[in-house]
Amino acid sequence: MTSVSENPLVIAGVRLGTAAAGIRYQGRDDLAVFELSEGSCCAAMFTRNAFCAAPVIVARKHLASGTATRYLLVNSGNANAGTGPDGLGRAHTTCAALAGLTGCAPEAVLPFSTGVIGEPLPVERLVSGLDPALESLSEDGWNRVARAIMTTDTRPKVASLQAQLGGKRISITGIAKGAGMIRPDMATMLAYVATDACVDAAALDRCLRGAADGSFNAITVDGDTSTNDACMLVATGRAGNPQVGLGSDEFRALFDSICVVCETLAHAIVRDAEGATKFIAVHVREGREKNECRQVAYTVAHSPLVKTAFFASDPNWGRILAAVGRAGLDDLDIDAIHIFLDDVCIVRSGARASGYTEEQGQAVMDRSEVTITIDLGRGNAEACVWTSDLSVEYVKINADYRS
Amino acid sequence: MTSVSENPLVIAGVRLGTAAAGIRYQGRDDLAVFELSEGSCCAAMFTRNAFCAAPVIVARKHLASGTATRYLLVNSGNANAGTGPDGLGRAHTTCAALAGLTGCAPEAVLPFSTGVIGEPLPVERLVSGLDPALESLSEDGWNRVARAIMTTDTRPKVASLQAQLGGKRISITGIAKGAGMIRPDMATMLAYVATDACVDAAALDRCLRGAADGSFNAITVDGDTSTNDACMLVATGRAGNPQVGLGSDEFRALFDSICVVCETLAHAIVRDAEGATKFIAVHVREGREKNECRQVAYTVAHSPLVKTAFFASDPNWGRILAAVGRAGLDDLDIDAIHIFLDDVCIVRSGARASGYTEEQGQAVMDRSEVTITIDLGRGNAEACVWTSDLSVEYVKINADYRS
Repeated sequence: MTSVSENPLVIAGVRLGTAAAGIRYQGRDDLAVFELSEGSCCAAMFTRNAFCAAPVIVARKHLASGTATRYLLVNSGNANAGTGPDGLGRAHTTCAALAGLTGCAPEAVLPFSTGVIGEPLPVERLVSGLDPALESLSEDGWNRVARAIMTTDTRPKVASLQAQLGGKRISITGIAKGAGMIRPDMATMLAYVATDACVDAAALDRCLRGAADGSFNAITVDGDTSTNDACMLVATGRAGNPQVGLGSDEFRALFDSICVVCETLAHAIVRDAEGATKFIAVHVREGREKNECRQVAYTVAHSPLVKTAFFASDPNWGRILAAVGRAGLDDLDIDAIHIFLDDVCIVRSGARASGYTEEQGQAVMDRSEVTITIDLGRGNAEACVWTSDLSVEYVKINADYRS
Repeated sequence: MTSVSENPLVIAGVRLGTAAAGIRYQGRDDLAVFELSEGSCCAAMFTRNAFCAAPVIVARKHLASGTATRYLLVNSGNANAGTGPDGLGRAHTTCAALAGLTGCAPEAVLPFSTGVIGEPLPVERLVSGLDPALESLSEDGWNRVARAIMTTDTRPKVASLQAQLGGKRISITGIAKGAGMIRPDMATMLAYVATDACVDAAALDRCLRGAADGSFNAITVDGDTSTNDACMLVATGRAGNPQVGLGSDEFRALFDSICVVCETLAHAIVRDAEGATKFIAVHVREGREKNECRQVAYTVAHSPLVKTAFFASDPNWGRILAAVGRAGLDDLDIDAIHIFLDDVCIVRSGARASGYTEEQGQAVMDRSEVTITIDLGRGNAEACVWTSDLSVEYVKINADYRS
C-alpha cells in the first residue's frame, strides 16, 4: 500500500456536498451529504452509550430495514440527543426531506448529528440547507465535509491511501471529527471511511470491527463516551477488483489498509484533543489477557494526576505507579512490574529503577509524543491506548463550550 | 448526641505532639505523634491500591503482631511509596527510633506517611524531630496535628462531638487530611478518629468499617486512589461507660456518632478538594442494588465533562445524561430515568423535562452546593457519592505540585 496522506483521494462512487444551514454556527458549513452510488455496500458501528441519540436510533433502524443506503446526512452544532420521541420525529423528518429531494426511500438515508446535547434539532434550517448541499455534490468534496462536521475540533482529519487488490489499484479515504467526550465504545464520534474496492458485506463488516478495535476503540481523551459515536465504512465497488470475501489474501490486504486509515484518523483525534499539548501512547505488555492490559492502560490514560503531570512535563512516575496499582487487577505482583517512559526505565521490580535520574525522565517528558510502557510480568498479552494530557485549556474549553 | 463542631474536644488517653522536621516543607510542622494510653483499642483500614506504601505495609504487620498500639507516627511531605525494600527499612527505622525513645516495642508504633511518591524518606531528619514532638505531647494538640499532616490541603479538617453512652458522656474527635488523589478505596488519605468510650475490638472495627463506607469510601475528587490511604479509630476507654459490644443499643448510638464525625471529615476533604469551587452530591436512587447505584454515581462524579460544566456553573444536563448512559448498567431503560438538579427536574422519562427552563437550571448551578439526583426506576437501592468540580486551578495545582 502507499503511505497514508492527508490529501483525500477521490473515491469513485462517492460524491460529497456541504451547506451552511446556520444550525448553531454562523458563517461556516455545518451540513454535509454523502451520496453513495448504487451497489455500494456499508458497514456501521454506533455508540454503546445507553442514551444513544435519535439519529443513532434511526440510522440503526434504517440499516436493519435492508434498504441499500444511498445517502449519509450529517449535521454539526446539535446532537439531537436526550430529546426523546420529539427528537426521533425530527431525525425522521430530515431523512424524509432528503429522500423527497432525491427520489429514494427514507430508509436509504442515514442521519448523523454532533454538537450540543438536549436541544431541539432546528429541522427547518437543516432542511433548507439540503438543496444547496445537493447542488454542491462532487467527488472532491472530502475536505469540505471534514470541515463541516467539526465542533470543538481545531483542524479537519483526513487520511487516504492506495493499495493493490486482485490486480487492481484501489483507494481508501476517511474523515473523522472529535476532540472531546472521547472514549469511543464502539467507534468514535463521527468517522466515515470509503473505498472503491468491491467487498462483500461480511468482509466489510469484519474490516470495520477489526480496524475500529485497534483505532477508534483504543483512544480516550476524557473517558466520556459520546451519545452520538458513529463510524461508517463504505465500499462502492467501482475499482473493478474481484469481490473480496472473508479469509482471502485480498481480505488481509484490504483489512491492513483500512486499519492504517482508521489508526491515522484516531490518532488525529487524540492529537487534536481539547487543549492537548502531548500525544501519549500507553502500552501495557505481559498481561494474562488483552482485557486486563486495556484495563491498566485506560486507568493510567484516565488518571487526572497522570494527565496533569504530562501537561507539566513532570516525570512524576509515582502517579503512573499509583494508577497501575488501583487498576483493579487481582493478585498483581508489584515486584514483577517494570515501567518505562520511552526508552528510560523508571520503575524496575516495583520500585524506582536504580540508576534512574530526574534528568533522564525530564528529557523524555520534554517531548511532545511520549510512550509509557508498563510490563506486568504475568503473561504474553498486550494492548495499547492513546490519549492526551489534561491542560488548563481543556478545562477552559469545556467550561466555555455552551456559552 | 451534640451537633458536630470544628473545635476539637480533648479525648482522655490521647496526647498529641508535633515538630518541624524539615522533611520537605520549611517553617511548618510536618511530623506528628499520637500517644495512646495503655488499654486503648484500635481499628484500622488501609488503601486497596496494590502499590501500597511502605508505612502501610509496616502498620499492617505491626497491627497483626497482636502488640497493643501505643504510638501513631505521621509525617507529611514524603509518602515513602514506590520505594521498595529500602522504603520498608526506613519505615522500620522510624518506628524503632520512637520505640527506643519511649520504651515501647517497635510493633507498638504504627507509621503513616503522606506526600510525594517515590523519593527516599529522609530518616535522619524525621528521627531528629521525634524528641521535640514528644516534648510537645499534650491532650489539646489536635489542631496542631491536623495542620502538621496537611500537604496540598488549604485548611485543617477537624470534627468533634459528644454523646451519651451507658449513662456516661463520651467524646469523639477526628482529624483528616486530603485534597487530591482522592478516591479512597478503603479509607481516605489519612484520618484519625478517637473516642474515650470503652468499646470492644469487634464493635470498634464494625464502627470504623460501617462509618467509612458512607463517608471516606463515598467521596472522590479525581478517581485516583492513593497508595497511602489510612484511617484509624481509637477508643481509650476512659469515659467510664460499660464496654460497648456488637448489637447493643449503645453500639448503635456510638456507631451513629462515629458516622457523623467521619462524614463531616469526608465532606471537609471534598470541600477542600484541589481547586474546587463547588461541593456536589450525586444521589442515585431506585437501583436494583447499591453497587449499581454507586457505579452510576461514580461515573457521573468522575466525568471531566460534568465536572467542568459545574466549574462553569453551566446547567449542561446533557453531560450528566451521557455519563449515566455510559455507566455500564445492563438493560438500562432510559425511558424510566429522571434526573434532578436540587429540586429542579431536568430529565423526565429519559428526555428533557417539559417545562424545564435554562433559568431554573442556572439558578441551581449558581449555588456552591448542588445535589444531582438520578432515579433509575428499576429497584429500591440507593447510594450517594460526594465530589467537587474540575477547575483550571485543579490542573494548575497538579501541574505545579512537584516543582
